Amino acid sequence: MTSIAIIGGTGALGAAIARRLAKAGESVILGSRDPAKAAAAAAALQAETGRPVQGRGNAEAAAAASLVIVTVPFVSQESTLTEIAPACRGKIVVDTTVPLMPPKVMRVQLPAEGSAAVRAQRLLGEGVTVVSAFHNVAAHKLATDASVECDVLVFGDERAAREQVLRLVAQCGLRGLHGGALVNSAAAEALTSVLIFVNKTYSVDGAGLRITGSLTPPAAG
Amino acid sequence: MTSIAIIGGTGALGAAIARRLAKAGESVILGSRDPAKAAAAAAALQAETGRPVQGRGNAEAAAAASLVIVTVPFVSQESTLTEIAPACRGKIVVDTTVPLMPPKVMRVQLPAEGSAAVRAQRLLGEGVTVVSAFHNVAAHKLATDASVECDVLVFGDERAAREQVLRLVAQCGLRGLHGGALVNSAAAEALTSVLIFVNKTYSVDGAGLRITGSLTPPAAG
Repeated sequence: MTSIAIIGGTGALGAAIARRLAKAGESVILGSRDPAKAAAAAAALQAETGRPVQGRGNAEAAAAASLVIVTVPFVSQESTLTEIAPACRGKIVVDTTVPLMPPKVMRVQLPAEGSAAVRAQRLLGEGVTVVSAFHNVAAHKLATDASVECDVLVFGDERAAREQVLRLVAQCGLRGLHGGALVNSAAAEALTSVLIFVNKTYSVDGAGLRITGSLTPPAAG
Repeated sequence: MTSIAIIGGTGALGAAIARRLAKAGESVILGSRDPAKAAAAAAALQAETGRPVQGRGNAEAAAAASLVIVTVPFVSQESTLTEIAPACRGKIVVDTTVPLMPPKVMRVQLPAEGSAAVRAQRLLGEGVTVVSAFHNVAAHKLATDASVECDVLVFGDERAAREQVLRLVAQCGLRGLHGGALVNSAAAEALTSVLIFVNKTYSVDGAGLRITGSLTPPAAG
């Protein structure tokens, strides 16, 4: 039995993931810079799902959980991860950060580290296992009960950690796929700007990504 | 009536694109470092398609064409583009280069310029209109007459140039999509390493990419 903290859990993506995980039976702790806001959102989610949901400040939420999902805007990534780093030692942190730099969100602007995921690993330190995922899913679609036409590529240097995150992705009703090493996160992060461009150019309400081909699940590793 | 040079046209991707374009009725000029090899491949393709196909050295092929498609390995990109640059002034050059660095081809390794496409623009100079495309299509699938389950993201800073390339993509039997500015090419280039990883991990014979969502073609621009 694990408890999962969603840092930035009152934002659009965080709230959507929290809701899907709670509905799947997970124990969720919403984290926010504002503990009162987190508590209010938690009470509402608990009422909706019938599952126990807590709400706390970000660092407290990370400390109380066995796995941490970070869903904050790129501009808040550094301050948030620095704040929660001590509480994440020995844990898996799922970073969902896409390096969007408003107003040019349709333009790929990868950070100097190559990806937000590698930046997360540097900010959190070596005692934390960073996995990245959920870059390409439209939050407003994930917020519904409808099926979402989007694969979730999962990146990380440890296969066992990726597999743990793949199970969470499946609990959210999405197909997750091993995407390889953490540095490969650049592909999915960059693709989000392309999808935003596609949304505008082709009048799409949330374009997504599917990997095609006859995929055979790998043997458990 | 345009003639299209395929630089590196005797390689796997170049030969596949050349064959599809010739079958679609385009006049194709195969370029190779070895003019005799290009001539032999051209004769074979002409015999197969019944279309006029020429074979020349790379620079001669670029000079003779009104549009140039470059399909060389990343390691040859700099020397090839430097060689053909003078012949490309005022033309559209479609760069298909993926920055794969063997042996770690499953690892995203974008060049210092951010993408092979931006690198191509720097190497060719400002008098050339670089568009990038065809990064994610498995060459051995494109080499057949079968339909290929892969969208082609097309990147470039000029929409009219992207549209011209989208027409070529359609002639190849593929769905092409505007992917935005040339810098956005990083997304598709990086994704190729992820697809190679997926191929290995899930025993796939050429995974591809589909953009999901109800896409409405943009008004002609």
